[in-house]
Amino acid sequence: MRMLDIILKKRNGEELTKEEIDFWVKGYVAGHIPDYQVSALLMAIFFQGMTGRETADLTMAMAYSGDVVDLSPIPGVKVDKHSTGGVGDTTTLVVAPLVVACGVPVAKMSGRGLGHTGGTIDKLESVPGFNPFQSNQDFIRIVKEIGIAIVGQTGNLVPADKLIYALRDVTGTVEHKSLIASSIMSKKIAAGADAIVLDVKTGSGAFMESVEDAFSLAQEMVNVGNRVGRKTAALVTDMSQPLGMAVGNALEVREAIEILKGDRTGALMDVSLVLGAYMLFMAGRCSGIEQGEDMIREALYSGRGADKLKEMIQAQGGDQRVVDDPSLLPLADNVIVIKAEQDGYIYSIDARRVGHAAHLLGAGRNTKDDAIDHRVGIVLHKRVGETVRKGDVLADFYVTRENLLERAVDTFKRAFVIKQERPKPKPLVYGVVT
Amino acid sequence: MRMLDIILKKRNGEELTKEEIDFWVKGYVAGHIPDYQVSALLMAIFFQGMTGRETADLTMAMAYSGDVVDLSPIPGVKVDKHSTGGVGDTTTLVVAPLVVACGVPVAKMSGRGLGHTGGTIDKLESVPGFNPFQSNQDFIRIVKEIGIAIVGQTGNLVPADKLIYALRDVTGTVEHKSLIASSIMSKKIAAGADAIVLDVKTGSGAFMESVEDAFSLAQEMVNVGNRVGRKTAALVTDMSQPLGMAVGNALEVREAIEILKGDRTGALMDVSLVLGAYMLFMAGRCSGIEQGEDMIREALYSGRGADKLKEMIQAQGGDQRVVDDPSLLPLADNVIVIKAEQDGYIYSIDARRVGHAAHLLGAGRNTKDDAIDHRVGIVLHKRVGETVRKGDVLADFYVTRENLLERAVDTFKRAFVIKQERPKPKPLVYGVVT
Repeated sequence: MRMLDIILKKRNGEELTKEEIDFWVKGYVAGHIPDYQVSALLMAIFFQGMTGRETADLTMAMAYSGDVVDLSPIPGVKVDKHSTGGVGDTTTLVVAPLVVACGVPVAKMSGRGLGHTGGTIDKLESVPGFNPFQSNQDFIRIVKEIGIAIVGQTGNLVPADKLIYALRDVTGTVEHKSLIASSIMSKKIAAGADAIVLDVKTGSGAFMESVEDAFSLAQEMVNVGNRVGRKTAALVTDMSQPLGMAVGNALEVREAIEILKGDRTGALMDVSLVLGAYMLFMAGRCSGIEQGEDMIREALYSGRGADKLKEMIQAQGGDQRVVDDPSLLPLADNVIVIKAEQDGYIYSIDARRVGHAAHLLGAGRNTKDDAIDHRVGIVLHKRVGETVRKGDVLADFYVTRENLLERAVDTFKRAFVIKQERPKPKPLVYGVVT
Repeated sequence: MRMLDIILKKRNGEELTKEEIDFWVKGYVAGHIPDYQVSALLMAIFFQGMTGRETADLTMAMAYSGDVVDLSPIPGVKVDKHSTGGVGDTTTLVVAPLVVACGVPVAKMSGRGLGHTGGTIDKLESVPGFNPFQSNQDFIRIVKEIGIAIVGQTGNLVPADKLIYALRDVTGTVEHKSLIASSIMSKKIAAGADAIVLDVKTGSGAFMESVEDAFSLAQEMVNVGNRVGRKTAALVTDMSQPLGMAVGNALEVREAIEILKGDRTGALMDVSLVLGAYMLFMAGRCSGIEQGEDMIREALYSGRGADKLKEMIQAQGGDQRVVDDPSLLPLADNVIVIKAEQDGYIYSIDARRVGHAAHLLGAGRNTKDDAIDHRVGIVLHKRVGETVRKGDVLADFYVTRENLLERAVDTFKRAFVIKQERPKPKPLVYGVVT
């Protein structure tokens, strides 16, 4: 088998066999196949696409290119949850404790944030003492004991995806649905998931800006899941404005706690309820989504979700008192208030720009080695569709440094569009692909 | 300027500017831009194409990526000739001396053969003593003295093409007309050509198998020539069967000599006459193609072409007596006769297979460092359309080794299709693009 023949076959629009896909993925990870042949193949895939079968085979080849987490010591169906990434998207911290409170174990590996979107591990690290890096043994033990652990990636998971993604990033082949789907799904499978609930974001703050593209990516991932024997459901949800009101690490943890304690409602809670219901359904804990939503809601209002979050924080070395007293979270003392400069309706809030503004305050990183500041961020006071008067507070900026503040404020102001016209409301959940 | 943006622009179907093309070609030659980005760009070009302007800019960026031969010390219009490569295609050895005999200088750099096609330099090296490697000074001096020299490439000519071609070869991006055109034309321009006559082959033995593809490549190259100020004409000629009767190095030299001495006619002579006429026309030596053909024919029948070949061989250190006595050429003693196994018409002779058979006898090379055997090859006795009876000689095999002989014979036999039906005759020259 020759890599050149594989490139030519794909270039000519033919379907690659499983053996051919295994050959190039293994050969690339082993260093036998050079970057320049893989980048040519990826560009050919960009133009010619992959069939569902090819995408599934690529997913599995990548998933098994390195270590695969074995969650079999944990009884029950292990359901993983993945968001394609958004701004103020703290659903994992809300939904995971709720699902566990309903009897479904969550053994979750999460990532760090990059660019304008945050990462669950960064957020959790704002809890004093919290340690996301557990040995595999401790990870399994904690889940067996209390039903939940959220850890950072350890071991040599999906090296093929790391290599291929880095190459796509510099060769103009990122934006292809089959490649995105195989990248996401390979990581979930390597992390040991039996079933997967996906939250595919759409709108200005999402990778897939159009609803159509989001559904098409959702369908692609569900197809892969079904082909490789992992029950998969994908929600398409709105990211045309930040999902929660908080954008920034400790601020988002605080918001998640407030929701779990029943002190706050809104879009973040609503999306979390639906995601949680699908996770229970996938795990066989309920017979339908409505029943699942009732169970999740009950776990929330009873405070069992908040208790689970406490248990997890404690099990992973963190100060669980933050759940009862969020003022123990590290937050910047300097709070700058951003006010509306005119009357009208909040016509749109560009989620990407809000994320970028928080990033400029120090909440995000440009490269994976950058340090982030857990204390900083933005708390919104308004959502799209609300009326506003000149002088009303639009947001609080939690600030620890001044150097990029002006740019952050400017970026933020450009994110907020105020018009005399009331915007057409958008759905929060566009639909579900199963 | 970033290479990633250039890749994305082309991937999205936009036209690259001259500055962008210069940036990536220069950056690649200088080693600043990695192979994997260039291969991704080439694959994007494969799918999105290039405009005439882009192809011309790429050609010039490659042509001026290294040394450029300065033929200005030689008076007159320097016309170069290039064939896209065929089997039994010895036109250069026939046409160059004839053109020179008509008063147009030929200062030609030629290449070696690779794969199933031969190279002029390999053929000339079968003449005892002939030295294709002349200093630039001697090259110019010889042309000024006798009007002709045919040398191998020296110096650092078109390094960009060498790098890009090598990359295309292993990344599945060889077969794209704009890339082929820029590769060929950049070499002609770097070799100092004022005007260019191209012989684009079509048929089973050619790179462009279909007539339509050949015309499209011809048009592409003529467009480039016109855009960069080099008068260019491109003939599309038949390569559905070997052009000459001989396939193999010394054997092809012998056939060229026989034609120049008026001892042999046929397709090789006919194509050479037309090519020569176009070269004279491009150089302004005649007012039309018919007049050019008359001049070339006169140079042939008067023996002045054969004399020029003698002069050139002598000037480059070779034994010019081979022209009067071709038996001085090194030829294998062992001649094996291949006979027809049935009666009928020669329906087709697959040129690629004949080239491959000669290759198996030792006439060609697989990699540019392989040694070749000048003495071996094949002489055909039949052409397409001729009748044949069982037992008639189809060809002589000139053989020096036995190890691959059986495979060579087998390959050759599969090249000859004999049917009861007379084949539809094909034109020798399909047309000209100017």
